Amino acid sequence: MRLYQMQDSGNCYKVRLAAHQLGQPLELVDVDILKGESRTEDFLKRNPNGRVPTLELDDGRSLPESNAILFWLAEGTALLPEDRFARAEALQWMFFEQYSHEPYIAVARFWHSIKPGGREEKAAMFPEWHRRGHEALAVMERHLSSHDWFAGGAYSIADIALYAYTHVAHEGDFDLAPYKAVNSWLARVASEPLHVPMNWRS
Amino acid sequence: MRLYQMQDSGNCYKVRLAAHQLGQPLELVDVDILKGESRTEDFLKRNPNGRVPTLELDDGRSLPESNAILFWLAEGTALLPEDRFARAEALQWMFFEQYSHEPYIAVARFWHSIKPGGREEKAAMFPEWHRRGHEALAVMERHLSSHDWFAGGAYSIADIALYAYTHVAHEGDFDLAPYKAVNSWLARVASEPLHVPMNWRS
Repeated sequence: MRLYQMQDSGNCYKVRLAAHQLGQPLELVDVDILKGESRTEDFLKRNPNGRVPTLELDDGRSLPESNAILFWLAEGTALLPEDRFARAEALQWMFFEQYSHEPYIAVARFWHSIKPGGREEKAAMFPEWHRRGHEALAVMERHLSSHDWFAGGAYSIADIALYAYTHVAHEGDFDLAPYKAVNSWLARVASEPLHVPMNWRS
Repeated sequence: MRLYQMQDSGNCYKVRLAAHQLGQPLELVDVDILKGESRTEDFLKRNPNGRVPTLELDDGRSLPESNAILFWLAEGTALLPEDRFARAEALQWMFFEQYSHEPYIAVARFWHSIKPGGREEKAAMFPEWHRRGHEALAVMERHLSSHDWFAGGAYSIADIALYAYTHVAHEGDFDLAPYKAVNSWLARVASEPLHVPMNWRS
């Protein structure tokens, strides 16, 4: 399988990490979104929404959206709960991640640390991103104060989805020190077998 | 099952529509988010993210996030494709809906037509919401120009997820007239068996 991706993107890291833990080799194809490479007509055939990650299967079919890719990779494995309700809870946290977490924590990181000149260009946006991002972190802290993992009582793709941008939240100028339960969970995720860091390439 | 909900919310409508089409009766409990009723300590025990819809099962367990609820209701039914890749494609479009569609089309509708005084309060935001919302509609138009449905070649929860706010986009001051394929698809969804409108209550 081939992953159209950007190494610095947490959404792409989710897929690299899950695939490695599942023993699924991926060929990485770097797409520079800063140069518009995800908006070419050729790329839009793979993903009409013009975003990475996009997974290309060996038969040529394409699948975009990081959390849909995680679900596809993990179905039938230990990374997705077998119990139907726990599976829905994993999705609950993955939709939370894309709606209430990523648009603030990942976006703040992009403009603070990835996009050249972004701190100055988006200076007026950071207070709102930080306010909403800390709301998301507080929701995670509340859950993790009484649970080791996000769904099904075990490490799953819900943890991978939320780990990707939480563990680099400081690159968006978030201070994670007050979130004790989140920090313990970050350490648990990082000590899972076959864990690899964001800069790792298959 | 009990649905904590708001009648005007497209996210809540998704659940009412799918449950009705699946023959699953729901007890509706109205929560007025404008009065902060989703942020009480009692409600936060059901959903730490303080949002509707939240589904409460007969055994007391709760499940938030509209699209996770849809998935839970639809597993094992005709509303979720059986094929594993098609199931991931359904999720692809549901994540697209929550990340690239709802934050612009639903949010513009909320401030334009639901929240009193919202048009004036958020006047500066509408150009950006309309720009990004039209990008999402163009992605849908591109897909629907060569497909009748979003996933698996049949009506599914992916269609329900995208129908909920698309069919009321005009309430956010979007003009859908240029989107021919989207309009045909809206009509197909509305003519599905057991379709009910947003104001319908079980």
